[in-house]
Amino acid sequence: MENFQFYSPTEFVFGKDAEMQTGRYIKKYGGTRVLLVYGGGSAVRSGLIARVKKSLAAEGIACTEMGGVKPNPRDDLVYAGIEKCRAEHLDFLLAVGGGSVIDTSKAIAAGVPYPGDFWDFYAGKADIGAALPVGTVLTIAAAGSEGSGDSVITKMEGGLKRGTGSDLLRPRFSIMNPALTCSLPAYQTACGATDIMAHVFERYFTNTTEVEITDRLCEAVLLTMIRETPRVIAQPDLYDARANIMWAGTVAHTNICGVGRAQDWNSHGIEHELSARYDCAHGAGLAVIMPAWMEFVCTHNVMRFAQMAVRVWGCEMDFAQPENTARAGIRCFRQFLHSIGMPINFAELGAKEEDIPKLVETFGIGDGRTGGFVALSADDIAEIYRIAAHAAL
Amino acid sequence: MENFQFYSPTEFVFGKDAEMQTGRYIKKYGGTRVLLVYGGGSAVRSGLIARVKKSLAAEGIACTEMGGVKPNPRDDLVYAGIEKCRAEHLDFLLAVGGGSVIDTSKAIAAGVPYPGDFWDFYAGKADIGAALPVGTVLTIAAAGSEGSGDSVITKMEGGLKRGTGSDLLRPRFSIMNPALTCSLPAYQTACGATDIMAHVFERYFTNTTEVEITDRLCEAVLLTMIRETPRVIAQPDLYDARANIMWAGTVAHTNICGVGRAQDWNSHGIEHELSARYDCAHGAGLAVIMPAWMEFVCTHNVMRFAQMAVRVWGCEMDFAQPENTARAGIRCFRQFLHSIGMPINFAELGAKEEDIPKLVETFGIGDGRTGGFVALSADDIAEIYRIAAHAAL
Repeated sequence: MENFQFYSPTEFVFGKDAEMQTGRYIKKYGGTRVLLVYGGGSAVRSGLIARVKKSLAAEGIACTEMGGVKPNPRDDLVYAGIEKCRAEHLDFLLAVGGGSVIDTSKAIAAGVPYPGDFWDFYAGKADIGAALPVGTVLTIAAAGSEGSGDSVITKMEGGLKRGTGSDLLRPRFSIMNPALTCSLPAYQTACGATDIMAHVFERYFTNTTEVEITDRLCEAVLLTMIRETPRVIAQPDLYDARANIMWAGTVAHTNICGVGRAQDWNSHGIEHELSARYDCAHGAGLAVIMPAWMEFVCTHNVMRFAQMAVRVWGCEMDFAQPENTARAGIRCFRQFLHSIGMPINFAELGAKEEDIPKLVETFGIGDGRTGGFVALSADDIAEIYRIAAHAAL
Repeated sequence: MENFQFYSPTEFVFGKDAEMQTGRYIKKYGGTRVLLVYGGGSAVRSGLIARVKKSLAAEGIACTEMGGVKPNPRDDLVYAGIEKCRAEHLDFLLAVGGGSVIDTSKAIAAGVPYPGDFWDFYAGKADIGAALPVGTVLTIAAAGSEGSGDSVITKMEGGLKRGTGSDLLRPRFSIMNPALTCSLPAYQTACGATDIMAHVFERYFTNTTEVEITDRLCEAVLLTMIRETPRVIAQPDLYDARANIMWAGTVAHTNICGVGRAQDWNSHGIEHELSARYDCAHGAGLAVIMPAWMEFVCTHNVMRFAQMAVRVWGCEMDFAQPENTARAGIRCFRQFLHSIGMPINFAELGAKEEDIPKLVETFGIGDGRTGGFVALSADDIAEIYRIAAHAAL
């Protein structure tokens, strides 16, 4: 096991009607003038924004709204939010939504006290040294941004989708009412579930040996997702299954599933090129990329993939030919993704094989290699896109 | 799943030589004048106290020492520590040791700003409203106190062993160097492992349905302990196994394994009477009590015990007679405890069957019943002690 630091100071308030406590928690964490960030109209139509605003008003908290955050959130709204916070002396970011809304809020929070361009943090040119406090009211189980210090933003110019991270961006509190997710369409639910599972797999496939506790925690989240996701696809308002998925999504990404080990994250990077280019859902892109990546790297550590197959997918171990088991596990994953309505190849996603050279170019690895479980060259990445393009059950 | 709040703000600093950073973290969390609390001479003899003091000195942090904390820590040192902190205007508690040292430090931290008797918190007469900050340097994987808000203290007068809890008692930071545990004797190691597993079982046996994610997290910790504990009993200096156990001990008790569900904790209460009366190790007492408790309550929910047997102990499911599987799982647990050198009955522990009426009396349930998985009467508790008295493989 490697040395690590783990710090997850977010206060999670989980359960029915939890959003009624939003104002109380902003007050507890020192907010007095809030930028309320949200996405499309559904949070307004459902009455959620009104309930949140009512709870702010009850605590005497001033509130400026900024709606309109889109999936694969863009830098333009971040710049607008930073301006608003500075102009109106706002001191707290409240994100009501999913990963896109939360990531936008985090970017604004880091940008306000920074004299330069906030994109510096995403371009790897500067480290975050200060940030306004952020709180969240989560409406979809997916990104895990409610419990992480991470944020991913797309720069419109050049279509660059990049991430940054800092413990300073971890939300002070996250309000999590699983009932808010019961009205999500099946497709969005499945995209979220895929993202959650991907967050685990990015940590599960490691070259660090002897990290049994994090292996087992990873498997715990995956087993939960495998049980609960088909249940909510079949019956969207199954509260308990929604609750298990929502909390699993947080556990998947606070990094408690990743401490003490090297991690991968190549699948996320390879996917980001798809969602940046085709504006597809991140989870849908991951459903296409992640099993393809697994097939490409499987022989690097057959026993680790066999472990996944046996412990997570319930495959029987082929002791004579472990690679059979390893590959059976990957097939189970792809079949599972298909069963919950996810695309499994480029055609189903709306991506084009002829774009592969462009995807590889924007990925920007040049003549170098990535880090991670298997260090990938540009050719390797092209091959993973090709496997993804042609994947079948 | 039930509504819950989860807040674990402790910063964990994990790995080799981590204790060299103690001073830096005290400074980060605002400490300037520290009460350094520790136990017997081993922390001194090993040079740990000297290393910690050196790291405090390097940051210009003043330090008053208080050694001598014993297992099953007592109120007398708590009173002494409160006096010292008040007299010398100390502003930070640094616990270097295991659960007893940390629990003593937490009691002092809560007692200093409280005008009444600190025991009020443990007697259930007052809630903790403020506390000095606490940091820890952990030397044994067991109590999980390094990541919890809990503290257990024994009142010498009457031999009352009682617990209290508050998020205010969660350590600001915990320094966890698994190498410090490599010199622990096998018996202490096994006692710690038993305590860790018990912390999970107290949460695993619940009447709340549909909490798959916490079930799976509980199982993750248990499976880790079952793999790693025999390895360190056989080879004490196996760093990675020690590391897995140490982090499993923290995960077992931050309450991430317990959120969203009713919990039990009767075994802990029943055990506390043994360690208070016979001054045995808490883990050893649990090894005797916990399987006996399981046998007594097994029929309350046979399928939950069967789930433990199959998922945790690898038993094959007897679909015709699930109770066979359930009881096989309990037998596996007792055999495991025996295999790591734990006592499994009163004789091996040094407890006396004729004391059972006195144990039940001090437990103090009277004509009432406990809460938990199965609400126990005084007669039930006496029967659990009797099962424990006569247990055999």
